[in-house]
Amino acid sequence: MNSANEGAVDRPIRVLILGGGFGGLECARHLKDDRFAVTLVDKRNHHLFQPLLYQVATAGLSAPEIAQPIRMLVRGQENVSVLMDEAVSINLAERRVELRQQTLGYDYLVMAMGVKTGYFGHGEWAEHAPGLKSLEDATRIRSGVLRAFERAESGVDPVSRERLMTMVVVGGGPTGVEMAGALAELSRKVLAEDFRRIRPETAHVILIEAGPRLLPTFAPDLSEYARVRLEKMGVQVRLDTRVQNIGDGLVELHNGRLEAETIVWAAGVEGNALTKNLPVPQDRAGRLLVRPDGSLPGFPEVFAVGDMISLTDKNGVKVPGVAPAASQLGRHVAGVILAELRHRERYHATQERAAFAYLDKGSMATIGRSSAVAAAFGLKFRGYLAWLMWLFVHLLFLVGFRNRIAVVLQWVYSYFTWRRGARIITREDVNVR
Amino acid sequence: MNSANEGAVDRPIRVLILGGGFGGLECARHLKDDRFAVTLVDKRNHHLFQPLLYQVATAGLSAPEIAQPIRMLVRGQENVSVLMDEAVSINLAERRVELRQQTLGYDYLVMAMGVKTGYFGHGEWAEHAPGLKSLEDATRIRSGVLRAFERAESGVDPVSRERLMTMVVVGGGPTGVEMAGALAELSRKVLAEDFRRIRPETAHVILIEAGPRLLPTFAPDLSEYARVRLEKMGVQVRLDTRVQNIGDGLVELHNGRLEAETIVWAAGVEGNALTKNLPVPQDRAGRLLVRPDGSLPGFPEVFAVGDMISLTDKNGVKVPGVAPAASQLGRHVAGVILAELRHRERYHATQERAAFAYLDKGSMATIGRSSAVAAAFGLKFRGYLAWLMWLFVHLLFLVGFRNRIAVVLQWVYSYFTWRRGARIITREDVNVR
Repeated sequence: MNSANEGAVDRPIRVLILGGGFGGLECARHLKDDRFAVTLVDKRNHHLFQPLLYQVATAGLSAPEIAQPIRMLVRGQENVSVLMDEAVSINLAERRVELRQQTLGYDYLVMAMGVKTGYFGHGEWAEHAPGLKSLEDATRIRSGVLRAFERAESGVDPVSRERLMTMVVVGGGPTGVEMAGALAELSRKVLAEDFRRIRPETAHVILIEAGPRLLPTFAPDLSEYARVRLEKMGVQVRLDTRVQNIGDGLVELHNGRLEAETIVWAAGVEGNALTKNLPVPQDRAGRLLVRPDGSLPGFPEVFAVGDMISLTDKNGVKVPGVAPAASQLGRHVAGVILAELRHRERYHATQERAAFAYLDKGSMATIGRSSAVAAAFGLKFRGYLAWLMWLFVHLLFLVGFRNRIAVVLQWVYSYFTWRRGARIITREDVNVR
Repeated sequence: MNSANEGAVDRPIRVLILGGGFGGLECARHLKDDRFAVTLVDKRNHHLFQPLLYQVATAGLSAPEIAQPIRMLVRGQENVSVLMDEAVSINLAERRVELRQQTLGYDYLVMAMGVKTGYFGHGEWAEHAPGLKSLEDATRIRSGVLRAFERAESGVDPVSRERLMTMVVVGGGPTGVEMAGALAELSRKVLAEDFRRIRPETAHVILIEAGPRLLPTFAPDLSEYARVRLEKMGVQVRLDTRVQNIGDGLVELHNGRLEAETIVWAAGVEGNALTKNLPVPQDRAGRLLVRPDGSLPGFPEVFAVGDMISLTDKNGVKVPGVAPAASQLGRHVAGVILAELRHRERYHATQERAAFAYLDKGSMATIGRSSAVAAAFGLKFRGYLAWLMWLFVHLLFLVGFRNRIAVVLQWVYSYFTWRRGARIITREDVNVR
């Protein structure tokens, strides 16, 4: 029997993808087959290039330069429709997802909602120490930092000035290291000449890490290199330091307290609230323990991708919660769904599904202007070469983003002038507190 | 007697400038003399290139591309310090200005706070029909328009869909014409291919003007040309139409009513609340009637510049409330202050102050892609040539703005692809209403 005909008479197969991040978007893009009616749902209208979010938070780039409307990214693919909506409940048994504005059934469900900032059970800290997950987070941090310097300049008492010019970053992973480095550059280089009463270069940037070293996923010598570099840049790195409480402008440590107007939380993430109650195994952080093909145990028609899952791939490699892994698994899941359809058409039977194999293209973290650490293909890089690699990889990533030319220009410009263009405070609550 | 010495022994002369718009910024930049201690106060941290604000509102440009930190613009001028603060009261008798965070005395005061959107006594309309004065206004309109299309796409009833896809612009001046044209392009070109269920090109863009023609400050044939062009672009132009009430998604006219999710107010401005109670003459709209040199009657040490004043210059020309006029008067006032100091040093006497002469470099309004109207040096232009003039002039304006390269790229890109990069909804209240 001719599969094309059979496909033609079938009603389209409904694939519902929740989340337009790297995993969900890549999955949708690879379901190029008119027999699939793909619906991509995201509560925001844009796909976000998260690896550069810290640049928006530190006024290096403007929000639209690292975000792209999801519709635009799939505009050419007629079988994909995009909905700006949010899932409020998932019913695996009846294969339905309730959105705010409607309820959708599915034949295949791909969950790619990602994780949210986790405060280890201290949700009340969020208000004082935003994480760095969304453009709102980034612009909030940017406005907060810039406003703090503005208020310090407009003649306050020395104690307040000290607090206003202190920035604390909690968490020594890549995000924390990149934020701390960028904040140090912002105060010591970008803002240095712009004030008359205060000296921004005297601002304190303090990086708190509970563990014994920064960048724990990297080799120890790279961790050490990052620490030394950051301290050269003026960042106070505090290792083996635990945060016990966070209040308004206040961080209480197990060995002291810090008054800081700006507090950034880069210490942890937690699973999506929506998946907590699903009848599927999860790890302590709420990540879904998926099967080797990316599907949920007991629900072969449901998949999960991205940093919301926990999976050891077919080569025994623990799949990290990074963008490349999310894209790869998204593509893999699309392949599984396509293969299943074609196999069933031909043999009217299901086949064993392929297990996911993660291709580690390496990991890197930038410490600041022209300095980074990278590990790829068993080799370690650091300093300027690693930074060039970082720059190259991230510009490659941006391909497909219309903004890439503008972004490159921005970086070239900022690199030589130390000026940053996105130093704009746009929120209404100017002069609050 | 050597004026330099005398200047050196004097305490610095305190010049307080309220507002970092075109007028205030230009005044500060021309007070290049260390005998002046210039303080520039603005409630925002950025100088805004208002003529392109409509581009941000219609997703053509991102906010930072038309805004620049005020500090950065005067960083080289040591005698100028910038404060991000807001004046709450002005005491002309005691020469003091109370800011939110402190009170400042002055020897010279330059008021350049601009005007705010005026609703002819119907302040309650503001909530439903934002004006276009600030980046917050622009991003609010942008998010509203984009979200309306998103909600229309996510399957609502036909009536709601009609409302969601209707945009009303009130006011047929340059801002209203530019907004209507840009909204028509946004729906008919930029968004056209991005949706599956709705057809954005069927969206309604309605431009309401109470008077008999658009662009009343231009020649009648240019007004007519603008009307014809806009209607070709799909804009419904309604002349001689008065707005009687504005509610949530509703515009009541003297001859009917319109249901529209997006309502933009470009119909009027009113004087700054701060100046209303000052003991100085004002016109009905609350504009200050300044003397020929730009000072306030009875207060020679106090000046006002920009669109918050009403002045007929020495050539009998009514000074318009546009950016070039604001810059010119700001420069003129700086000149008056400088001349006064030098004259007093030399002759220990005051001199007659120079009267302001406005140099009209022409006025223009863009109707849409590659079409505009312009009047300059007694000549009239329209169509493509006028648009090129408009583009040229506005790019010139942007000189000094780091972003100009990026802006040019954006425009070139958008011109050929109809894509717009800033189509990002960044406010938290997604799915409200």
